[in-house]
Amino acid sequence: MRDAIRDAVVGDDVYGDDPTVKELEREVAALLGKEDAVFMVTGTMTNQVAIRAHTEPGDAVLFDQNAHVYILEGGAPAAFAGVLPRLLPGARGVFSAADVSGALGLSHRFFPSTIPAPVKLLCLENTHNLGGGKVWPIEQMAAVCELARQRGIALHLDGARLWHATAASGITEREYARHVDSVSVCFSKGLGAPVGSALAGSREFIARARRFKQQIGGGFRQAGIIAAGALYALRHHRERLGDDHLHARILARGIAGIPGIAIDVATVETNIVRFEVTSTTAGDFVDRLHARGLHVLPSGERGVRAIPYLNISPSQIDEAVGIIAAVAREVQALN
Amino acid sequence: MRDAIRDAVVGDDVYGDDPTVKELEREVAALLGKEDAVFMVTGTMTNQVAIRAHTEPGDAVLFDQNAHVYILEGGAPAAFAGVLPRLLPGARGVFSAADVSGALGLSHRFFPSTIPAPVKLLCLENTHNLGGGKVWPIEQMAAVCELARQRGIALHLDGARLWHATAASGITEREYARHVDSVSVCFSKGLGAPVGSALAGSREFIARARRFKQQIGGGFRQAGIIAAGALYALRHHRERLGDDHLHARILARGIAGIPGIAIDVATVETNIVRFEVTSTTAGDFVDRLHARGLHVLPSGERGVRAIPYLNISPSQIDEAVGIIAAVAREVQALN
Amino acid sequence: MRDAIRDAVVGDDVYGDDPTVKELEREVAALLGKEDAVFMVTGTMTNQVAIRAHTEPGDAVLFDQNAHVYILEGGAPAAFAGVLPRLLPGARGVFSAADVSGALGLSHRFFPSTIPAPVKLLCLENTHNLGGGKVWPIEQMAAVCELARQRGIALHLDGARLWHATAASGITEREYARHVDSVSVCFSKGLGAPVGSALAGSREFIARARRFKQQIGGGFRQAGIIAAGALYALRHHRERLGDDHLHARILARGIAGIPGIAIDVATVETNIVRFEVTSTTAGDFVDRLHARGLHVLPSGERGVRAIPYLNISPSQIDEAVGIIAAVAREVQALN
Amino acid sequence: MRDAIRDAVVGDDVYGDDPTVKELEREVAALLGKEDAVFMVTGTMTNQVAIRAHTEPGDAVLFDQNAHVYILEGGAPAAFAGVLPRLLPGARGVFSAADVSGALGLSHRFFPSTIPAPVKLLCLENTHNLGGGKVWPIEQMAAVCELARQRGIALHLDGARLWHATAASGITEREYARHVDSVSVCFSKGLGAPVGSALAGSREFIARARRFKQQIGGGFRQAGIIAAGALYALRHHRERLGDDHLHARILARGIAGIPGIAIDVATVETNIVRFEVTSTTAGDFVDRLHARGLHVLPSGERGVRAIPYLNISPSQIDEAVGIIAAVAREVQALN
Repeated sequence: MRDAIRDAVVGDDVYGDDPTVKELEREVAALLGKEDAVFMVTGTMTNQVAIRAHTEPGDAVLFDQNAHVYILEGGAPAAFAGVLPRLLPGARGVFSAADVSGALGLSHRFFPSTIPAPVKLLCLENTHNLGGGKVWPIEQMAAVCELARQRGIALHLDGARLWHATAASGITEREYARHVDSVSVCFSKGLGAPVGSALAGSREFIARARRFKQQIGGGFRQAGIIAAGALYALRHHRERLGDDHLHARILARGIAGIPGIAIDVATVETNIVRFEVTSTTAGDFVDRLHARGLHVLPSGERGVRAIPYLNISPSQIDEAVGIIAAVAREVQALN
Repeated sequence: MRDAIRDAVVGDDVYGDDPTVKELEREVAALLGKEDAVFMVTGTMTNQVAIRAHTEPGDAVLFDQNAHVYILEGGAPAAFAGVLPRLLPGARGVFSAADVSGALGLSHRFFPSTIPAPVKLLCLENTHNLGGGKVWPIEQMAAVCELARQRGIALHLDGARLWHATAASGITEREYARHVDSVSVCFSKGLGAPVGSALAGSREFIARARRFKQQIGGGFRQAGIIAAGALYALRHHRERLGDDHLHARILARGIAGIPGIAIDVATVETNIVRFEVTSTTAGDFVDRLHARGLHVLPSGERGVRAIPYLNISPSQIDEAVGIIAAVAREVQALN
Repeated sequence: MRDAIRDAVVGDDVYGDDPTVKELEREVAALLGKEDAVFMVTGTMTNQVAIRAHTEPGDAVLFDQNAHVYILEGGAPAAFAGVLPRLLPGARGVFSAADVSGALGLSHRFFPSTIPAPVKLLCLENTHNLGGGKVWPIEQMAAVCELARQRGIALHLDGARLWHATAASGITEREYARHVDSVSVCFSKGLGAPVGSALAGSREFIARARRFKQQIGGGFRQAGIIAAGALYALRHHRERLGDDHLHARILARGIAGIPGIAIDVATVETNIVRFEVTSTTAGDFVDRLHARGLHVLPSGERGVRAIPYLNISPSQIDEAVGIIAAVAREVQALN
Repeated sequence: MRDAIRDAVVGDDVYGDDPTVKELEREVAALLGKEDAVFMVTGTMTNQVAIRAHTEPGDAVLFDQNAHVYILEGGAPAAFAGVLPRLLPGARGVFSAADVSGALGLSHRFFPSTIPAPVKLLCLENTHNLGGGKVWPIEQMAAVCELARQRGIALHLDGARLWHATAASGITEREYARHVDSVSVCFSKGLGAPVGSALAGSREFIARARRFKQQIGGGFRQAGIIAAGALYALRHHRERLGDDHLHARILARGIAGIPGIAIDVATVETNIVRFEVTSTTAGDFVDRLHARGLHVLPSGERGVRAIPYLNISPSQIDEAVGIIAAVAREVQALN
């Protein structure tokens, strides 16, 4: 991948003239079954540009209560798009058509939709990050999207981890994408490129997205340098995600049963292993793991998130289990 | 009140030169124990200007999940202030210090507060509109505000119905206001003036609020015409709110037991009577009541909100009970 | 007018139920030849809601360089609508179709309109406040609007002083309004009502404007109290504006020739008399006039704006000339 | 440079853990004499984040009438920061302290600064892009900045081409930067890196800037890949900018005198050659140059911008003169 980056053919992306970026955009659009796609520097940017492009300030947007775009993107839905979040009571990020219907509420002449703000967009996330890499059941996703379309609500899929849903379920990215108007995907994270994300949708929608990309300073110049890494990852790293999923399950089974650790191994569907620590804060536990060379993130007061990725070997997974067990013992001993 | 309006002495409020407005602002500030106050045209404006003045775009704000400022003000927290709502699981609008603490979440170097958006403001509402006129227990309010202050979070009280809390609890408006940085109050609604609201706080805060009032077109000219009605209501209508509360309780007891109506009379603490209809939608029920001359509002899929107000007599309450009973029978008969 | 206000029949404007407001809105729409109109509390609100309703954030809007909506409305075009002002080099607020064409600039594949922000709206102001009450020549206004329409640009007329243009030119408000998509008018200022403004346009546009009115806290309740004064002013005070214009010309001729005062009497077309003071700042001059009971405003470093209005008699105009002359002498003496 | 990019040591920039990014940030801060710096993906992002970090919505910002941040950044000052542009009458981007003073206008109790929006920031651009690469005279820059500081106005320098000002004047980047609170610089464009920009300022300001960088999706992950190119350009390409400046002067002298081309060679101070075409539009002229292999940009109705850069040889400059002469003849022949 590094060689591909070094040897990238570049142009000026602001003028739509970078051949490597254009190749990546075509390939992503085809893979997702959409008319067009646009390359950007981060998943936060593709998601927030999508929200902005589907709405105008004062519109309401339906999010799962733990959606990455709502919880972990710097207040951008409000600060950049000016939209009001309405929250859905998802379980690990998955909600039902009835949940959506309930959130849309009343329509009556003494309760015009402009008073509570009209709902214009629904966002889904597959797999769901804070839901521990949960894969959306395709039928449930179809039902939710069908309802939204009937009610005139646009649909955006945060597919930063969509490759993982496909690797786990065997359902193609294109099939998931068919139910929504726009999809973002990420080339960093599990796919292993250093930087980059893409947003796909109709030709008209992507033209509008390009405008907002430029407006928030996302219009990079010789972006082919970055796109080359993304293209390499897209072509070579998707088929190996199953290894990460296997490693995740091994890790989960390895730490289940360690005193001071709570985990339901059935929740490990893809590459994310989320567990709770019962004897200290997540922050303290994570710091202790880092001190022993195991890099994971805190996620909530008691939650820890561990992710096996490219180049992690089975023996390193065993090592990780050992470090977690050691830290758990260390923490128990302090109490 | 109409004579007071006709005979109002006026000036130009944009230049701070309207004597009636200034008199009202002084009187409100004194009543609430704050340094200054500013008169505006609506409660939505005083609330949203307060949110804007306490924050900047991208900040997070804690709201009860059913707060009027979040649910019923046209998306303004996002569209005008650019702030991201974080929701508290209030029961009829009342939440605990533990709820607030839980919502503030993690602080860790791998989870900087800028990623989820830093929390800068907490809003309370007393009495709580969608909570059916619920009065905040003062000790619980004090505990919530104490915690917020320790965490460096500003506090705003939506006191559109604060007069009702005082009438019901005997705790002065000033005592409620003591725990927060800013308070909005309304002169229309229960107090009976045609139009108007005020926002109170520190001198510096109110100077900042005046800027945003002007910016969103709230800088009216000879506003003394409107302030005269508000001043009259403030001076003459607060002491009679107990009558409305009594009427509300009578109404609630009157409709409890009607088949097809669900109501817990213990929830009627002030002037709001909320009940559920079980055999039709709230919208349909409300339309049928209107057709018989009883004006109430739908509030949610099944909820109906009835409010006794100035000039409603006890016999009209009896009449209202009769109309509700008749419509309930009518609806039952259709099923 | 005060009696009309006292006796106003009112309802709840938020639900579109206030009969006096509805009557006023119908009358304004008819007068301006538009399908619908909406009543609001200030001219800043009608103008800024219009800008918001015609655009979305990131659009560019063409303003005269001294337009009230750009210069004197608290930064609202940027803060509330998020639009970027592009400025036209008007002379006393009047610009040409060539000026507009020049401002639209280049269209080329290496200069996509999203880089400089696409122009979506052009605002005119008639009469022009900072232009000293200048009346737009109707043919020039028609040419400017024709060009904008050809280029797909919406048109808004800030008609806070449109009544004065009509009184001065004999051209009806409806004829001016015919060239634009939306018009705001004010009932305070020259027309003499205490408070109020209206925005007129297509049915669809006004529905959209009502949403933003509500969002920024402009949805007042028993607004008929205010609308009654506006309705009275609309019906009884338009025909007498010629008196103010006459008084303005008398005042202008009276002060022309006073040492230390510069004025071109030909610029006094309506009710605004703008002059420059040459020996002190406008602020100081205005303060000295106030001390002698003459209320005028500073407008720029050296500019003073005087406006004869309802109930000002010819002898008071003579008195004003005398005060200005006395202050001019006083200031000259200090130098 | 491509090898440096391939071999970059990377980490996760969102957590401040990318060593190459950190090295670049330290080096930029030191070069500019500021406490800290932050790396971003584009100059539009560093500029707009700087504007956002210095202000809040509704503030006014002083820009030269042709400033890149105002004219060519997608409406972001309004759409993202919500600030109102006030324009300065610069000549090729350079204005005087008197211009700034004039733009600040009146201060008077009947003209509170909140009505026209308070001025909080002044932006300069050195060298000035649309001013044809004009270098700010250091004494004039000092005087402008001194005045702004006295009036409590923050200062941002768009230094996308600051390296060119230094190469042309011999005045260090640090000396220019000393007069302002924040500076943006670009590594692409003349410096030759594929992508990247940095913003420097006080530690507190940069912390605030990092928040807004994250919020608009600028928080890239393994950004060291990109930073490595920027670092290489910073270390190896600054000293050679004099060659580009020489080439620009040769080009300018070469085309001066060609019929149909207007250029003042004295305006070519750095690497930008701007000329006007008199017999066709800039767009048409540029298209004809492209067809012959000469890549330049249109800039305004009649303006063309040509920039010699890295790897352009003297003989290619001669070739460019020849192509421009040929196209000018071709166009003349059509008239």
